[in-house]
Amino acid sequence: MTDDVARPGVHIRAIGSFFAGGRIATLSGQPKRQIQVARHGPQREVDLNGDYVTGQSYVQFVHHVAPRFDAPVMFWHGGAMTGAMWEATPDGRPGWQSYFLNAGFDTYVCDAMERGRASWSPYPDIYATAPIHRTLNEAWSMFRIGEADGYATDPAQRKPFPGSLFPLDGFDDLGAQFVPRWTEHGHETLDAYYEALRRTGPVWLIAHSQGGNLALEAAARHPEFFRGVVAVEPASAPPDPGDANRVPHLIVWCDNIDKAPAWVAYRQSVDAYADKLVALGGNVHLLDLPALGIHGNSHVPMMDANSDVVAGEVLAWVESVVATKAAG
Amino acid sequence: MTDDVARPGVHIRAIGSFFAGGRIATLSGQPKRQIQVARHGPQREVDLNGDYVTGQSYVQFVHHVAPRFDAPVMFWHGGAMTGAMWEATPDGRPGWQSYFLNAGFDTYVCDAMERGRASWSPYPDIYATAPIHRTLNEAWSMFRIGEADGYATDPAQRKPFPGSLFPLDGFDDLGAQFVPRWTEHGHETLDAYYEALRRTGPVWLIAHSQGGNLALEAAARHPEFFRGVVAVEPASAPPDPGDANRVPHLIVWCDNIDKAPAWVAYRQSVDAYADKLVALGGNVHLLDLPALGIHGNSHVPMMDANSDVVAGEVLAWVESVVATKAAG
Repeated sequence: MTDDVARPGVHIRAIGSFFAGGRIATLSGQPKRQIQVARHGPQREVDLNGDYVTGQSYVQFVHHVAPRFDAPVMFWHGGAMTGAMWEATPDGRPGWQSYFLNAGFDTYVCDAMERGRASWSPYPDIYATAPIHRTLNEAWSMFRIGEADGYATDPAQRKPFPGSLFPLDGFDDLGAQFVPRWTEHGHETLDAYYEALRRTGPVWLIAHSQGGNLALEAAARHPEFFRGVVAVEPASAPPDPGDANRVPHLIVWCDNIDKAPAWVAYRQSVDAYADKLVALGGNVHLLDLPALGIHGNSHVPMMDANSDVVAGEVLAWVESVVATKAAG
Repeated sequence: MTDDVARPGVHIRAIGSFFAGGRIATLSGQPKRQIQVARHGPQREVDLNGDYVTGQSYVQFVHHVAPRFDAPVMFWHGGAMTGAMWEATPDGRPGWQSYFLNAGFDTYVCDAMERGRASWSPYPDIYATAPIHRTLNEAWSMFRIGEADGYATDPAQRKPFPGSLFPLDGFDDLGAQFVPRWTEHGHETLDAYYEALRRTGPVWLIAHSQGGNLALEAAARHPEFFRGVVAVEPASAPPDPGDANRVPHLIVWCDNIDKAPAWVAYRQSVDAYADKLVALGGNVHLLDLPALGIHGNSHVPMMDANSDVVAGEVLAWVESVVATKAAG
């Protein structure tokens, strides 16, 4: 396993997690049942009536003994994913969490409301609707590994884009981390993240896809929570930049967007938003990888073969913002 | 936040995660829909037909630069819970993951199939049935914080057992980490854990409640995976000890079992199993906390006010097994 954070290691003071936000919801009218809950055990009564905690986010922290930066990095995952996406690449290399830990940041890796360890609530009783699930087929085209008709169940038959940097042997491991999601929970998801941010204090936020979409909105509503926002391939932008001009933004785009109509539409939304932000005097930097001559990145550059190169570009931007602020 | 792993810190070489086990399941016959998936974004087609990875476990690792022990500690959570239960207590103290990291073990914290970051699959299409959910009400009595009628939605009205060591202010934070579960997946859950163990090599397994039940079965079927098994309040035992006499066992029991009929039944099952194991020449140690004069522990001693004291008892047992083996 090539899992080194760093050759010299990282000296940590604390590792742990907490839950933030959410509320109590009460369920009634469910029939009581006798169920064998424990394998090989006797039946016991199961009663789904009562109080549930719903709407919370989950936040995992690693704190250095001596961080090099005075604000931590927080990570928000994309749609149908969890914080696991930042921990390792699907082919077992260190993820961006390790990269930024190694660079000297304290880190916070989040699971949004209803995803991963943040849990989800009974539907249609507490949540109104059923979730949607992501197939490997959809991920193949939406994550721009290849054309939609390039996916096959048999790995040997899959046809990626020429020059794709996604680690193809890990594609099914990418699929192992997909979680169901509800499409109408954006507002509550943000509320739970805001509660997490009230607890952590200001952060450098690195957010992917749906998380990038939420990050743009969060910076517009609550600029006080952010030293800067890195939106990696954000899936659309909010209509109103609000006070986002107070927050430095880095927006990262990868290869083959023109081959995926959904991404053409999402990027149009974000480009228009960035224009508004610039018109308001905002500090918006575009990291358009193909325009820089970096080709072959998928929608998940933190998993691609050059994941450390892209992380290095993000780190360089953070350091430039820190330097500009220090000089100002 | 009192989140110190340790005053001097821990020097880590690697932090990350992987998925283990599972298989591809294919769904067909679902209607395609146009949905606004991205907040503020345009609609796109969502097609639930296709391939899913199902049945996998999730494993998070922290590796020391220089571990003090030659085998790591692996943690299996209980029913309706995830690996988060080992990361912190509900009142924000360091969890048993930190305790054993600090003692010098590499750690693996797992989420079982269908729980937390291991994700879950569409039902009734891939999973046959709906899950069950855990209420705060049920947790109050099943986790032996107090009698069933001592629970109230209003924290001020709750009546715990006299002398309870559970951090009552954190009870709703405990509820925040409950996840839905299916009751018929024990076999597949174990298969995914076995795949994780094939990757990690032999471990000291610390397992709670339902996880303890699975741990006893795993030690009986695959003794080669374990240096020792610590079952904290296991919810029943398998019928057949198999080759478990090759694995040292520590079984931990807490207070007020006589006040919870489900736990009286579960413990009877485990006591009978332990007797069988001893008759086969097995090495079974009972850590009966009230019998040792340690009163007030709930079903989740890793969260109680004396969590480090109980962890210390577990560590002392591990060290005694290591010492005996070295002497032999």
